[in-house]
Amino acid sequence: MALEPTTGRVRNENDIIIMERYAIGVDFGTLSGRSVLVNTRTGEELAVSVFEYPHGVMDERLPDGTRLGVDWALQHPQDYLEVFRKTIPDVLMKSGVKPGQVIGVGIDFTACTMLPVMSDGTPLCFTERFRKTPNAWIKLWKHHAAQDQANRLNAIAGKRDEMWLARYGGKISSEWLIPKILQIVEESPEVYEAADRFIEAADWVVWQLTGKEMRNSCTAGYKGLWHKHDGYPPDDFFAALNPAMRKVVDKKLSRDIYPVGTKAGAITAKSALLTGLLPGTAVAVANVDAHVSMPAVGITSEGKMLMIMGTSTCHMLLGTAEKTVPGMCGVVEDGIIAGYYGYEAGQSCVGDHFQWFAANCTPAEYSAEAASKGMDIHQLLTSKAEKLKPGESGLIALDWWNGNRSVLVDVDLAGMLLGATLLTRPEEIYRALIEATAYGTRMIIDTFEEYGVPVNGLYAAGGIAEKNPFVMQIYADVTDREIRISGSPQAPALGSAMFGAVAAGSEAGGYDNIVDAAKAMGKLKDTVYRPIKENVDVYDLLFAEYRLVHDYFGRGSNDVMKRLKEIKKAVRS
Amino acid sequence: MALEPTTGRVRNENDIIIMERYAIGVDFGTLSGRSVLVNTRTGEELAVSVFEYPHGVMDERLPDGTRLGVDWALQHPQDYLEVFRKTIPDVLMKSGVKPGQVIGVGIDFTACTMLPVMSDGTPLCFTERFRKTPNAWIKLWKHHAAQDQANRLNAIAGKRDEMWLARYGGKISSEWLIPKILQIVEESPEVYEAADRFIEAADWVVWQLTGKEMRNSCTAGYKGLWHKHDGYPPDDFFAALNPAMRKVVDKKLSRDIYPVGTKAGAITAKSALLTGLLPGTAVAVANVDAHVSMPAVGITSEGKMLMIMGTSTCHMLLGTAEKTVPGMCGVVEDGIIAGYYGYEAGQSCVGDHFQWFAANCTPAEYSAEAASKGMDIHQLLTSKAEKLKPGESGLIALDWWNGNRSVLVDVDLAGMLLGATLLTRPEEIYRALIEATAYGTRMIIDTFEEYGVPVNGLYAAGGIAEKNPFVMQIYADVTDREIRISGSPQAPALGSAMFGAVAAGSEAGGYDNIVDAAKAMGKLKDTVYRPIKENVDVYDLLFAEYRLVHDYFGRGSNDVMKRLKEIKKAVRS
Repeated sequence: MALEPTTGRVRNENDIIIMERYAIGVDFGTLSGRSVLVNTRTGEELAVSVFEYPHGVMDERLPDGTRLGVDWALQHPQDYLEVFRKTIPDVLMKSGVKPGQVIGVGIDFTACTMLPVMSDGTPLCFTERFRKTPNAWIKLWKHHAAQDQANRLNAIAGKRDEMWLARYGGKISSEWLIPKILQIVEESPEVYEAADRFIEAADWVVWQLTGKEMRNSCTAGYKGLWHKHDGYPPDDFFAALNPAMRKVVDKKLSRDIYPVGTKAGAITAKSALLTGLLPGTAVAVANVDAHVSMPAVGITSEGKMLMIMGTSTCHMLLGTAEKTVPGMCGVVEDGIIAGYYGYEAGQSCVGDHFQWFAANCTPAEYSAEAASKGMDIHQLLTSKAEKLKPGESGLIALDWWNGNRSVLVDVDLAGMLLGATLLTRPEEIYRALIEATAYGTRMIIDTFEEYGVPVNGLYAAGGIAEKNPFVMQIYADVTDREIRISGSPQAPALGSAMFGAVAAGSEAGGYDNIVDAAKAMGKLKDTVYRPIKENVDVYDLLFAEYRLVHDYFGRGSNDVMKRLKEIKKAVRS
Repeated sequence: MALEPTTGRVRNENDIIIMERYAIGVDFGTLSGRSVLVNTRTGEELAVSVFEYPHGVMDERLPDGTRLGVDWALQHPQDYLEVFRKTIPDVLMKSGVKPGQVIGVGIDFTACTMLPVMSDGTPLCFTERFRKTPNAWIKLWKHHAAQDQANRLNAIAGKRDEMWLARYGGKISSEWLIPKILQIVEESPEVYEAADRFIEAADWVVWQLTGKEMRNSCTAGYKGLWHKHDGYPPDDFFAALNPAMRKVVDKKLSRDIYPVGTKAGAITAKSALLTGLLPGTAVAVANVDAHVSMPAVGITSEGKMLMIMGTSTCHMLLGTAEKTVPGMCGVVEDGIIAGYYGYEAGQSCVGDHFQWFAANCTPAEYSAEAASKGMDIHQLLTSKAEKLKPGESGLIALDWWNGNRSVLVDVDLAGMLLGATLLTRPEEIYRALIEATAYGTRMIIDTFEEYGVPVNGLYAAGGIAEKNPFVMQIYADVTDREIRISGSPQAPALGSAMFGAVAAGSEAGGYDNIVDAAKAMGKLKDTVYRPIKENVDVYDLLFAEYRLVHDYFGRGSNDVMKRLKEIKKAVRS
């Protein structure tokens, strides 16, 4: 097969000329956005372009110098538009693909990253009136200043026996939509008043491309408390949060939510100027970075779990029924793949955990050894830790250095290491921390299965999955499951491109549904991590011990971690 | 007052000439022996001399090259004689004191450090027949190769409901006398057969000075299972250990045990040649290094606890009744001060604990900072840790990195750290480990009091007590008690000199009992560590948490530490 890049035609073995078509996926991350241009027939990624947000994460001050409070994290809408302006023309140029060959665009975003806008989509922070008002800006997913609001929301929802609470593992995060809106109502009622819409940045950028507000089922379901059949929580609930919020859904959100895989609209004349794409190019409704990675590894059927492993881990799983599973972050019908219930769970401390250890607890002699061998400290620790056998250190840890998301949903839990002796070496602790995160994943898998959601296949994407065979083998051994690895280092952008191809439809050279797109464009590496029987047997014993202390410290037998946190707060205040 | 050193006469304010008298204390440690020459009237230490054992600790081979097994630790009897030969003449020379002014000699030793000898005191290892037989040599206190024998001894004693077992906290250490003899019987029956005596090195060196076998109550009581009223365990018990040992007490030990404070005899013509002392100079019965430190800090009455704080900590306490206290290492009437019950307890990991952390868990940037400030790593960690308030880190640890001696008597327990977050810093962990050892001490104190042995005053000696005000303040705050510090950096040698003065008696310019000697010669620093109310209150809360996890992991609710150790053993084997 010979490619003619500038025309996009290829000759196959029968010498029949095929006209190649392309889709672009745009992945908006925490610090940068990237576009990937993908062949819709093969999934081949022809070009990538990354643009760092000029304003990054604003956690100390607004662009004009206005100071922000503790735990704030804002972004600038213009940065997102610049991602379109810079990276789409760039991938076109790099690949030699012509705009006419691009049939669709899909985007994914961090979530909940939200902003207040006017009815025409203009961000309030772009107006003279509000440009100095922090609550008028984009609240990034990791804006944690609405914790008080989240706590009150959870208390009120619990008291009212709100049925939907169980769908989110019994607790709403301060990172999600409603606590962020509640913070705006309470702190800046004038912003709440002036806002015609509160909208996910994901949906806002799609609006900028298509000129239409088309909210997606993924962010609405996972972050906005929306349910396909039950809709939003009742007005009474919002009124209980704050009387001004009684009509928030009808007046400031929308009850029109579109399943992922829907076409949101098309590139407008205006956005054609911005992006260099042709007007009329299909645009998909938006998606969330983690969720959109599922089809990117080819997952489109039930029982397959994808772990996106980086500083933290996000677990995605498709099921055919809606079950209430303790500790899950959410279950949303059509939330990942239309026709399935998409389950999400998470571990709040994975790569961060190993990094904490490397930065704080490895001795000078190790740093020197790493330097002399031209390794970074993780490589050196890994080279020592991989020589150990499971169980050899006598250590177990609880992976709660950043609290526990699934299955306990408790940010007040803290880390524990047990079994140390005077002969314990740093690499033994390092390995124990890695194993602890694997036990945490096994706990999530076991809990899903226990509550009726089967987990038959395990997949991994993200930095750790890509680069760390040592960690991945431990996960295979601890979970006693084969693990397959994403074929693309930019799974979210690839997944978004697939949704772009679906928005275009098969007639335009795309696909009619994400299942077909995933079959053609989804990718896995050849590497499969397979459990080693000998290790599995030892890890079964160790996991039983982990579970025992997990339940003792995590389920109320001894709330020492919470009491220590209270003491710490009291002493520091 | 003006001293004329060569004559030892002083003029006091009334211009009356006082003839000064001196005593010499000889302290036999693990790697060296030291003599201190002390003024018996004032306690002033005029000269010190240290001699390192030429053979050190033999843990790999005998002097002729014979290989030793795992966990062996032997010494050479000649090294001890060299300590007398080198250091006693040296302190005489350095101080200018004449042999005629030295009225008495006392010695203290590590224990149980034991050897097989012939009826005239000749060590079997000095004979041609046995010089290549490891079991004929001196087994140092930390010889751990008799662990199997100790395990069997404990099982047999438990099964027979031996009453004396409770006096030792329910468990006999492999470091003590009978397991060591049992190892000899089993492995080298010819040595057992040939030995006329098994004797503590403490008593053996006194025998070398005086020509008489005079066994002391301290080693016999704490290490040899002897009791002032009940004597040794019954012959049946020894026969149950090994039929050959039925008559071990009568044939190989002795039922004649002399309280500490007794005169063992006097320097012989032969030992006068060895030491440069005059024949007839009084010699005290021997003592143990930790125990002899009690009078050195002036403790001669009930309720006062001395902590000897180094790599591990030894706790000494005087009581007026014999109580069974869980976890104590032993209670011996006349074992420390005649007329009192001397209690001993211990923590197996104190300085070792901090050293483990410094060596294994402090990052390169800390090592660099320490170097740039001209500090060692402990000084740097201390400078950071002392800025923290109690409770501020949110951490607690269980100080079991080397198992737990008191109050749980369980070598299979292991260390635990709880409460870590991604913001936890090395100095917070360092402080938590220090606090954990202080909680361990408080647990010992509380347990003594709970079982009817009051603890009214707290004293400390040893390297940490001398040099580490940060640690000592934490101990004062955690125990809510004032702590007084030994006035001498060589408390054991000073204590031994006191016993030398008592052996000489008041008529010779010494004392009639150790109480009088301690009043005159005992020494404390001016420094007193006083509890700080604010810290005490927080530590009360933290100690309650420590106690909860201490009991959970230590008293059988969850034997995870033991199971992890079993897994570790199985994996490594």
